[in-house]
Amino acid sequence: MLRDSTATDNGQLLRNYQAVRARTLALTKGLSAEDLMLQSMPDASPGKWHLAHTTWFFEEFILKPWAPEYPVFNRQFSYLFNSYYNAVGNRHPRPRRGILSRPDLSQILEYRAHVDQHVGRLLANDTIAEYATLVVTGLHHEMQHQELFLTDIKHALFQNTFAFAQHLHTTPIKHQPLDSKFAEFSETLTTIGASNESFRYDCEAPEHKAYINAFSLRTQPITNAEWLAFIEDRGYRTPGPWLSDGWDHAQTEQWQAPLYWRKHDDQWQEFTLSGWQTLDPNAPVCHISFYEADAFCRWASYRLPTEVEWEHAARTMSPNIEGQLADSGHWQPTSVPVATGLQAMHGSVWEWTASAFAPYPGFRAEQGALGEYNGKFMANQFVLKGGSCATPRAQLRHSYRNFFYPHQRWQFSGVRPATNT
Amino acid sequence: MLRDSTATDNGQLLRNYQAVRARTLALTKGLSAEDLMLQSMPDASPGKWHLAHTTWFFEEFILKPWAPEYPVFNRQFSYLFNSYYNAVGNRHPRPRRGILSRPDLSQILEYRAHVDQHVGRLLANDTIAEYATLVVTGLHHEMQHQELFLTDIKHALFQNTFAFAQHLHTTPIKHQPLDSKFAEFSETLTTIGASNESFRYDCEAPEHKAYINAFSLRTQPITNAEWLAFIEDRGYRTPGPWLSDGWDHAQTEQWQAPLYWRKHDDQWQEFTLSGWQTLDPNAPVCHISFYEADAFCRWASYRLPTEVEWEHAARTMSPNIEGQLADSGHWQPTSVPVATGLQAMHGSVWEWTASAFAPYPGFRAEQGALGEYNGKFMANQFVLKGGSCATPRAQLRHSYRNFFYPHQRWQFSGVRPATNT
Amino acid sequence: MLRDSTATDNGQLLRNYQAVRARTLALTKGLSAEDLMLQSMPDASPGKWHLAHTTWFFEEFILKPWAPEYPVFNRQFSYLFNSYYNAVGNRHPRPRRGILSRPDLSQILEYRAHVDQHVGRLLANDTIAEYATLVVTGLHHEMQHQELFLTDIKHALFQNTFAFAQHLHTTPIKHQPLDSKFAEFSETLTTIGASNESFRYDCEAPEHKAYINAFSLRTQPITNAEWLAFIEDRGYRTPGPWLSDGWDHAQTEQWQAPLYWRKHDDQWQEFTLSGWQTLDPNAPVCHISFYEADAFCRWASYRLPTEVEWEHAARTMSPNIEGQLADSGHWQPTSVPVATGLQAMHGSVWEWTASAFAPYPGFRAEQGALGEYNGKFMANQFVLKGGSCATPRAQLRHSYRNFFYPHQRWQFSGVRPATNT
Amino acid sequence: MLRDSTATDNGQLLRNYQAVRARTLALTKGLSAEDLMLQSMPDASPGKWHLAHTTWFFEEFILKPWAPEYPVFNRQFSYLFNSYYNAVGNRHPRPRRGILSRPDLSQILEYRAHVDQHVGRLLANDTIAEYATLVVTGLHHEMQHQELFLTDIKHALFQNTFAFAQHLHTTPIKHQPLDSKFAEFSETLTTIGASNESFRYDCEAPEHKAYINAFSLRTQPITNAEWLAFIEDRGYRTPGPWLSDGWDHAQTEQWQAPLYWRKHDDQWQEFTLSGWQTLDPNAPVCHISFYEADAFCRWASYRLPTEVEWEHAARTMSPNIEGQLADSGHWQPTSVPVATGLQAMHGSVWEWTASAFAPYPGFRAEQGALGEYNGKFMANQFVLKGGSCATPRAQLRHSYRNFFYPHQRWQFSGVRPATNT
Repeated sequence: MLRDSTATDNGQLLRNYQAVRARTLALTKGLSAEDLMLQSMPDASPGKWHLAHTTWFFEEFILKPWAPEYPVFNRQFSYLFNSYYNAVGNRHPRPRRGILSRPDLSQILEYRAHVDQHVGRLLANDTIAEYATLVVTGLHHEMQHQELFLTDIKHALFQNTFAFAQHLHTTPIKHQPLDSKFAEFSETLTTIGASNESFRYDCEAPEHKAYINAFSLRTQPITNAEWLAFIEDRGYRTPGPWLSDGWDHAQTEQWQAPLYWRKHDDQWQEFTLSGWQTLDPNAPVCHISFYEADAFCRWASYRLPTEVEWEHAARTMSPNIEGQLADSGHWQPTSVPVATGLQAMHGSVWEWTASAFAPYPGFRAEQGALGEYNGKFMANQFVLKGGSCATPRAQLRHSYRNFFYPHQRWQFSGVRPATNT
Repeated sequence: MLRDSTATDNGQLLRNYQAVRARTLALTKGLSAEDLMLQSMPDASPGKWHLAHTTWFFEEFILKPWAPEYPVFNRQFSYLFNSYYNAVGNRHPRPRRGILSRPDLSQILEYRAHVDQHVGRLLANDTIAEYATLVVTGLHHEMQHQELFLTDIKHALFQNTFAFAQHLHTTPIKHQPLDSKFAEFSETLTTIGASNESFRYDCEAPEHKAYINAFSLRTQPITNAEWLAFIEDRGYRTPGPWLSDGWDHAQTEQWQAPLYWRKHDDQWQEFTLSGWQTLDPNAPVCHISFYEADAFCRWASYRLPTEVEWEHAARTMSPNIEGQLADSGHWQPTSVPVATGLQAMHGSVWEWTASAFAPYPGFRAEQGALGEYNGKFMANQFVLKGGSCATPRAQLRHSYRNFFYPHQRWQFSGVRPATNT
Repeated sequence: MLRDSTATDNGQLLRNYQAVRARTLALTKGLSAEDLMLQSMPDASPGKWHLAHTTWFFEEFILKPWAPEYPVFNRQFSYLFNSYYNAVGNRHPRPRRGILSRPDLSQILEYRAHVDQHVGRLLANDTIAEYATLVVTGLHHEMQHQELFLTDIKHALFQNTFAFAQHLHTTPIKHQPLDSKFAEFSETLTTIGASNESFRYDCEAPEHKAYINAFSLRTQPITNAEWLAFIEDRGYRTPGPWLSDGWDHAQTEQWQAPLYWRKHDDQWQEFTLSGWQTLDPNAPVCHISFYEADAFCRWASYRLPTEVEWEHAARTMSPNIEGQLADSGHWQPTSVPVATGLQAMHGSVWEWTASAFAPYPGFRAEQGALGEYNGKFMANQFVLKGGSCATPRAQLRHSYRNFFYPHQRWQFSGVRPATNT
Repeated sequence: MLRDSTATDNGQLLRNYQAVRARTLALTKGLSAEDLMLQSMPDASPGKWHLAHTTWFFEEFILKPWAPEYPVFNRQFSYLFNSYYNAVGNRHPRPRRGILSRPDLSQILEYRAHVDQHVGRLLANDTIAEYATLVVTGLHHEMQHQELFLTDIKHALFQNTFAFAQHLHTTPIKHQPLDSKFAEFSETLTTIGASNESFRYDCEAPEHKAYINAFSLRTQPITNAEWLAFIEDRGYRTPGPWLSDGWDHAQTEQWQAPLYWRKHDDQWQEFTLSGWQTLDPNAPVCHISFYEADAFCRWASYRLPTEVEWEHAARTMSPNIEGQLADSGHWQPTSVPVATGLQAMHGSVWEWTASAFAPYPGFRAEQGALGEYNGKFMANQFVLKGGSCATPRAQLRHSYRNFFYPHQRWQFSGVRPATNT
């Protein structure tokens, strides 16, 4: 498993490459060709498309420019499996990815094998070179898609009422109740963002100073039991604590609980990658939108932390990145008790912040096609921090900025409130 | 192959059953599990769904009520594969049929085998009985879905730009130009509709009198060459000959040619079940909507024939039902010359009539759930007559009334104009 | 008041012209400039627009071609107040008619006076001429818009919750209950449609033969009390009697009663041009769509009459056109008892027929721009017969064919059922 | 005219009240009752509604609670003219404000007079009291609506193609070209936001520290000539410089120039409140969205300033608030040269910042219904600073935060770029 994303020699780079690529394939276990073609909404992509698009990245950015003898697997794939990169040319429309019955799964698996073989050959024959960073970027890109693969297939199987469709068989973990506590932080001029020493996306840089007032941060995320109290207090029926846009969206979509909840015979259940399970009151609440997280906080007289506050807290009180991440194989959030301080800052659930996704002071987009990766999305989205149970360990950093629209709920997203002190 | 749809003994009935069921499976040749899951629009259904729904019909209406020991294959299928029948209970929403990755194709094939086995057992052990008509209805129902299977998969593969997706490999037929001629018919009190002697749908009955004025009918359908003249005369850009609703629809959908046409390197091509082919100017035009057919006729100083006129003409001048039907295996319309009289009244392309689909005088809907079959749709649709290259021979009759919305184009639909005399 | 729409001399023609034009203005009594600008839905037009468009007709088709010295009032009006006529040029988009604050009401009234003056001058100085028929057509056109003026302003004021917006003050009429009876008609070859002797629209001609089976027709329209029975039997909640398209529409629009009904303090009320009134159980039900009329009939084991049946019945049993028409000034349907035979075939409510609006055998559209008047709409609409309490007497004939889409309810539309015998 | 929004005695308060109220009425000069009913899009409100809603504010928050003998003008107005305040009860739906022909204009003018009379009486008889702040809030609220009145009527008249609809007659001002210069600012810990000394909205407080890096700010806004260069360089056709959401929106809406521009006989024109005028290349560009402002900056290798940067620059280099504001009566942006430093920081055009509208550290929403005023909108909107030619002088402050959605263009919005140094 990829531990350090920046390899110092080709051998290490190739081993990292092979580990990440193998893990993607492992995610398809138990899924049929039909399952891997499902696209349940425009935001989500078919599993087959994730398998192909991550491969396309290496073909387009590594093999085509750097491996002169590389035989293109199929010229049409350049069009079919481009995701956003305008600079690379036209692309198949995103909401229609589910219409691609052809190429079929076996052809995509051949495509992966073909590209893997040629990347292997390139790295074997070459000294570490300019494109090493691009390979590492490709691996981080693929790890992002590993998480999306899980969230997308969960959403797709959820649509299907047949036989409680499921992907995995894992046993639920039983949680103990925890006390609600807040850790305090003083007013200060702090530093956040990524330095240039190891791999980071362009949007995490530059490292920069920011002034913060004193604040407190919950030592653990909000639990299902706390969310049930919000529901029972008519949280989804009272406009008071909601943002205006959030309330409109909640009414239109008829939200009455987190995305994957249902009441069955008077008992709350939750859809998981292992099918429907009884809701555990002490587990972290998950699959909530920014709008819901924000309304919950206002209802509870809390607020969401800013991105700066969150990162400052993590750097100072939770310096080691550890928690329930995708490597555990248990892709359902759990609460991971620690003796003192902040609990589960990393893993379990992504935590919504109050901060719109925006450029850091001095931000410079990556050059070339990769420059379309993050900067293009700096409007209307909010930053999430900390990773989830579906995030590979190797792609996480304190400075990692995940971002989604405030109405989106199909990611493993939860909430850790803050207060002024 | 089912020749006479009304069997006189169980042995014949079973042979008919087996022939129709086998033909449905034969249509899937060359298609992957992924192909059979495609749903390209709400009007169309996945191939897998057609395989299951036609089977559901026999389980629901034959085996459940008449075979007391019959073990239901899977209780959830009753919900998943109901198409319209409100009386049978709730059903999976039509536009979401493409989301059913599960049950997968192998389970559907088992389902078919299971039901076939039990229908076989029932018919072997029983004397001909009350449900014989229901079995025949089920076979006609399945033949309708055979045609829809072809039109739906054609539409689905058409969406996919990858490698000129295709289903079959058949060689195009080269047509000779024909002269445009009209046959004349005198004013008369005629009789149309189905008697009760052999199988017919409820909407074809009762046989009844109707008065018609003198008229003429083209001896053959309009050809691609004639349609090109319409296009070149700015037929798709001039509101003059169009119905108001038709013009609005054509503008919204940006129609500029029949559904499956494209101009490639200055040459017109047509998408077929064998992929893209050069347009044959002398073949009948196909995949046009009622709106287009009607506009073409007004542009050419013709009009569409009424349903009564069409059936009167067929009964009197084309009494034998013969032409290019699905049994030919060539699922692309051709022109079938005959020495004299009306050419290709049956087969090749369905022919739009000017008649809205409405009840015949004295119409009575079938009793029970089957009563929801036709009468429910008697608004906003127009009648088509004569069958197409994708219609099984055994389901065709002079009285057969096919019906679609005036904007729909994915059926094998063409036009044979009439005039007043 | 215009009694005979075909005048034999210019003096009579001018008196007819002045009477119709004056009546249009009289309809605006009690309405403000703001009321006359309301457009509550794309189907409806502002009152100001009706005032202008009916004037435009005379300017465009009479004064411009026939009065050589005529000074155009304002060149832009030709664009602003064209309704459908493509042949006359582009036009202001229909759904945006409510955005025309300018020209303001006083300018439109000047426009009317200007055109009236010049039409008066033309008719005074000229012998009866070719354009006389066009003038008569313009008067019939204006009478159609008089009815639309009333239905549109009713719909617009209904949207406004302020002070029970109303247009008129008329006292409700109290009805007596009537027995439900049917009149019987024998199978026959009948004749319907308009001859060429007096004014008729193109779609009413030619007079032609049609064969009908024996049938019965209700002597009076369905009443509110009968409709309440349908509601109480869950008529709006049971898909059984509904057409498929009708049921979908009723669900989407959440129909639970006729358009202008509401339950207020446990009592049914009806919005009228004189504001909200208690529902009279014995008055004819009004403001129902074709879909509702059809579902009601199937629920009650009746059916809708065809257009041929209706006209045959009217010609034979109700030869004089009399009933509650717009001339009464009581623009709310009432039941008009007669001693025997069919009651209220004319006036009170338009009666939905089972017949789609389609060309009669031998139909020829009017030549020129007026040819766009009716033939353009011969798809997806159903014929209504008999006129309503908002229809001017002078525009009604047995052969008159009104037509609307099956979901539309804002006209004064009701239902008179038929049965087979 | 209201100079200082916080009065120290009732006499001054009343004079301020009368001045603001009179100015609102003055804006209606030249507009008909029909003009004042126009609602051209859900974002905009009819002029009549602005007249009523601003009056409703004083009735609801001042007279009802504080004037015990106050006779409510009309109980239904409480429902009709509530804008957002959920705490005050239900309200008429925003997109349907244009349907309110009743109450008519004369009733609304009576309503204003009635409320003005009673506010006058209250302030005359009373010593300065608790509600004084509410009166001042009401005046600021009304000044906001004065600006919206202008932007909304401009948008409404723009829809009307009739006779170049216009509101005013003012002569265009001819500008001289200016050099593009940038002012430099050093890295610092600065202070922004409003103290509690005088009137401010809740979202402007508290005053707080913020750290900024060194930056430069354009001394003047971007001009029309510069925008034309962007258009001519295919700025609206190249996705490169656009945010992803912005590009999608620009494509859907087919943007090709700022909102009110058109090319007429090969010459660019601009729609103004005085009708169509030739575009002045040296005037500031106006009526652009955030998406366009941001794309322009990236195309020109600039960026948008943050809210903190903008306010820091204004406080330090443009301490006096002066410029082309609404009080000038010239409601079309002009360039106001000053000798040195930043030009036109206030007035002329609102300037988009890069900052999402979000709570300041320690933000507390106003208590009661007024708390719904700003905090509800803290998602998906961006901050604009500096006021426009339609903003009353008396409502402007350095700390004033205007906010709109990034796609909105009907405000007087422009752009002043920044760079890193």
